[in-house]
Amino acid sequence: MIYEEKTMKSEKIYEGKILNLRIDTVELPDKKYSKREIVEHPGAVAIVPVTDDNCIILVKQFRKPVEKSLLEIPAGKLEINEEPRETANRELKEETGYVSNKMEYLFEFFTSPGFSNEKMHLFLATGLVEGDAVPESDEFIEVIKVNIDDLMKMIDRGEIVDSKTIVGIFMAKKYLSEK
Amino acid sequence: MIYEEKTMKSEKIYEGKILNLRIDTVELPDKKYSKREIVEHPGAVAIVPVTDDNCIILVKQFRKPVEKSLLEIPAGKLEINEEPRETANRELKEETGYVSNKMEYLFEFFTSPGFSNEKMHLFLATGLVEGDAVPESDEFIEVIKVNIDDLMKMIDRGEIVDSKTIVGIFMAKKYLSEK
Repeated sequence: MIYEEKTMKSEKIYEGKILNLRIDTVELPDKKYSKREIVEHPGAVAIVPVTDDNCIILVKQFRKPVEKSLLEIPAGKLEINEEPRETANRELKEETGYVSNKMEYLFEFFTSPGFSNEKMHLFLATGLVEGDAVPESDEFIEVIKVNIDDLMKMIDRGEIVDSKTIVGIFMAKKYLSEK
Repeated sequence: MIYEEKTMKSEKIYEGKILNLRIDTVELPDKKYSKREIVEHPGAVAIVPVTDDNCIILVKQFRKPVEKSLLEIPAGKLEINEEPRETANRELKEETGYVSNKMEYLFEFFTSPGFSNEKMHLFLATGLVEGDAVPESDEFIEVIKVNIDDLMKMIDRGEIVDSKTIVGIFMAKKYLSEK
């Protein structure tokens, strides 16, 4: 069974700095119409920086939508005309100060495909060399290094609550177990 | 270092069926102002249904935001006055037809905390009994049963591209390895 939802009408509601909102009227397989509220996002990269002593470099920052500081793997929006790998190297340096000698592409996924097209390109960064972070003007970030086994426990305890970070930790665990 | 972004102004842009959009003007730690585009979402549950023969029950459905049919674990929005566990039992039955004798709460996470407050409550469903699905009127869903080891390979090959589903598969793998 393969089907698509044909767009009958598309209405722009908002065009912003980070995201746009539009409403599509679609035709369903039974020929009835339905509405889809869609958040357009330019896409992003996330990086799992794994150190030689089995730790992950994380960043802690305040996230206004959830009114909380979250512990996350470094990440950032794709800029226009920027390859995901370039974004990954840039964001890793900006947010954590680390430079990676081996930036491996893992896979990509959608964070919330029910209402958004945000695509996350995931990279594994090893061969890390420490340096100074250079955050953007509206970013206030703390860099934290945590052992992978402790991170697995933190997921179970609900202390890591960001989807890309949970995926990244599981991938780091897999990488280390196969090394 | 703990800080918050204080809301100086909040502007409603859109109030919809599934989501709202608002723009907050916030004060940063250095007293400068910045804008945050925020998608409000009621929250959702996702269920990892694990069978006695080490398979996961997945659903395939067209996702308009990404213009593709995706293979996902069953999931659904929280309804008003509904406990997440109730939603989990309801959505599992509606989307797959299965009923679970053991619906275990795992943890909760944010799908995209950079721009949305969508919170996903994750459950592990075992003791499954097969039955008939009862999808909602605008849902067209195919139910697919896949072995957990095949799913791990599908993640590596980029064939599973939904964040909650990747998290769910890793949790199922962990559950089965500890059983």
